[in-house]
Amino acid sequence: MSETTGKTTKTSTPSPSEVEEALVRKVIASFDGCTDERLKELLTSLVKHLHDFITDVRLTETEWNSAIEFLTQVGHITDDRRQEFILLSDVLGASMQTINVSNLPYKDATEATVFGPFFVDDAPLIDNGGDIAGGGIGQPCWVEGVVRDTEGNPIPGARLEVWEADEDGLYDVQHDDGRVYGRAHLFADEAGAFRFWGLTPTPYPIPDDGPVGNMLAATGRSPMRASHLHFMVTAPNKRTLVTHIFVEGDELLTSDSVFGVKDSLIKKFEQQPAGTPTPDGRDLGGEAWSRTRFDIVLAPEGV
Amino acid sequence: MSETTGKTTKTSTPSPSEVEEALVRKVIASFDGCTDERLKELLTSLVKHLHDFITDVRLTETEWNSAIEFLTQVGHITDDRRQEFILLSDVLGASMQTINVSNLPYKDATEATVFGPFFVDDAPLIDNGGDIAGGGIGQPCWVEGVVRDTEGNPIPGARLEVWEADEDGLYDVQHDDGRVYGRAHLFADEAGAFRFWGLTPTPYPIPDDGPVGNMLAATGRSPMRASHLHFMVTAPNKRTLVTHIFVEGDELLTSDSVFGVKDSLIKKFEQQPAGTPTPDGRDLGGEAWSRTRFDIVLAPEGV
Ligand SMILES: [Fe+2]
Ligand SMILES: [Fe+2]
Repeated sequence: MSETTGKTTKTSTPSPSEVEEALVRKVIASFDGCTDERLKELLTSLVKHLHDFITDVRLTETEWNSAIEFLTQVGHITDDRRQEFILLSDVLGASMQTINVSNLPYKDATEATVFGPFFVDDAPLIDNGGDIAGGGIGQPCWVEGVVRDTEGNPIPGARLEVWEADEDGLYDVQHDDGRVYGRAHLFADEAGAFRFWGLTPTPYPIPDDGPVGNMLAATGRSPMRASHLHFMVTAPNKRTLVTHIFVEGDELLTSDSVFGVKDSLIKKFEQQPAGTPTPDGRDLGGEAWSRTRFDIVLAPEGV
Repeated sequence: MSETTGKTTKTSTPSPSEVEEALVRKVIASFDGCTDERLKELLTSLVKHLHDFITDVRLTETEWNSAIEFLTQVGHITDDRRQEFILLSDVLGASMQTINVSNLPYKDATEATVFGPFFVDDAPLIDNGGDIAGGGIGQPCWVEGVVRDTEGNPIPGARLEVWEADEDGLYDVQHDDGRVYGRAHLFADEAGAFRFWGLTPTPYPIPDDGPVGNMLAATGRSPMRASHLHFMVTAPNKRTLVTHIFVEGDELLTSDSVFGVKDSLIKKFEQQPAGTPTPDGRDLGGEAWSRTRFDIVLAPEGV
């Protein structure tokens, strides 16, 4: 717009940013023939952000080689029992962010958190009030609550899957002998209420003897997860809730290695000295125990 | 600043974008203790762009699962002979973008392109003027040129590594019997000049029987690479040049599956009818041949 602007001379060497932007346009255009509109949208965005990363950090060929080698290691340690790509997604917060965008806040619905790699879908059925420990070691913990909808109505018969590590910090599936402990499913009663015995949650490290563990070590990060108990709660016409509850006062709450902690999911686990009578009259043989309450609100399906 | 602004009421449910941005900040902060400043920079940028991708496309849990499964397949098909992560980087243009940011335009220096997965570093030495075909099948092609610096001075003794597929579109290393063909190294003469016999480049598909090939098919993309001949050129105090030359008129120039084509790298390959005398008097037994010229300019080291 200035009258003093002279002619610009076109040079034969394009500027770095022109070369880089032209490449991004070319890659995105390569998906023009993709008839799956959602796939095209995903890949277009992926390419844009991937190239932004490369050009922002001015990635070197040596660093690119290291990235290829790292991903190769992640691929090679992954098998039916070990999912290092999920771990990688977890420690970068990508799993939690996916949960966030898939489970938008809705009224007072209970918040979701990461699924984790340790769910199995044929966990034993227990009666309401039963024990999920299945021989797993740890301090007994009484868990109770009510499942309601966002209008406050109880949801009779809501299905609850619960799973957790033992006090050694290991899930049953981390043993290779097929043992089953620390997991079960049960159904809420006619008033939407549920109760069960589990184990007081204890902290554990995510598997850190592979490339993801090496990355955490190289960046000074801990592999430890804050103590937690997993829930998946389903009911007809309700949004499936995958979440955890965490233990108030746990010092790992602020440094959970997979960023799963949300304030609303931190619960009091009240320690009960040895000899304290249990809610269901169970005889714990003089052992101390704990108790917690988790009231659950399910959002409607499709929100 | 407006006098009409009233009080805002803080609601207890944070907005989706607040939740998402808070997570990104938390993940980035997890690298605060990383003492390797470059690693911290890389991971901070990676997290930022990865989360931007997830929130921009509103990634679903099903799509996240598909991504984990896809990466697992890429990892499992990768071995010492097959590098599917490099293929993935190639078809997303990430390899080419890394080349761009690592090899900035400098005066009239020859442009770089992708390295590809088929280089081996113990290729046979041939005399200047020798044959790199090594028994590989295809039409003979005479290649000549001069290696110079950006001041126009010849670079005597510059080392050239050259490699290419045969007319079936296969590199020697794609056979599993250890055969060697279509690759060699040679040295420019005292005038910086080089010449050798190779094979007229033909198109070939990148390996497309794995997950990356499935992705190309799902998006309507071709796995074909434009016909090319690979060069790596090194000389003391010069920036290493990794590049290809492409064949003028090849219809694949505009749809190269790894985005390696640059206009400056497209060369005339002149067809010579059967019986045309060869530059070095070689007797081709009445076979047709081709010839091309590739003058190379190396940038100084460190630009
Ligand atoms: Fe867990
Ligand atoms: Fe190639």
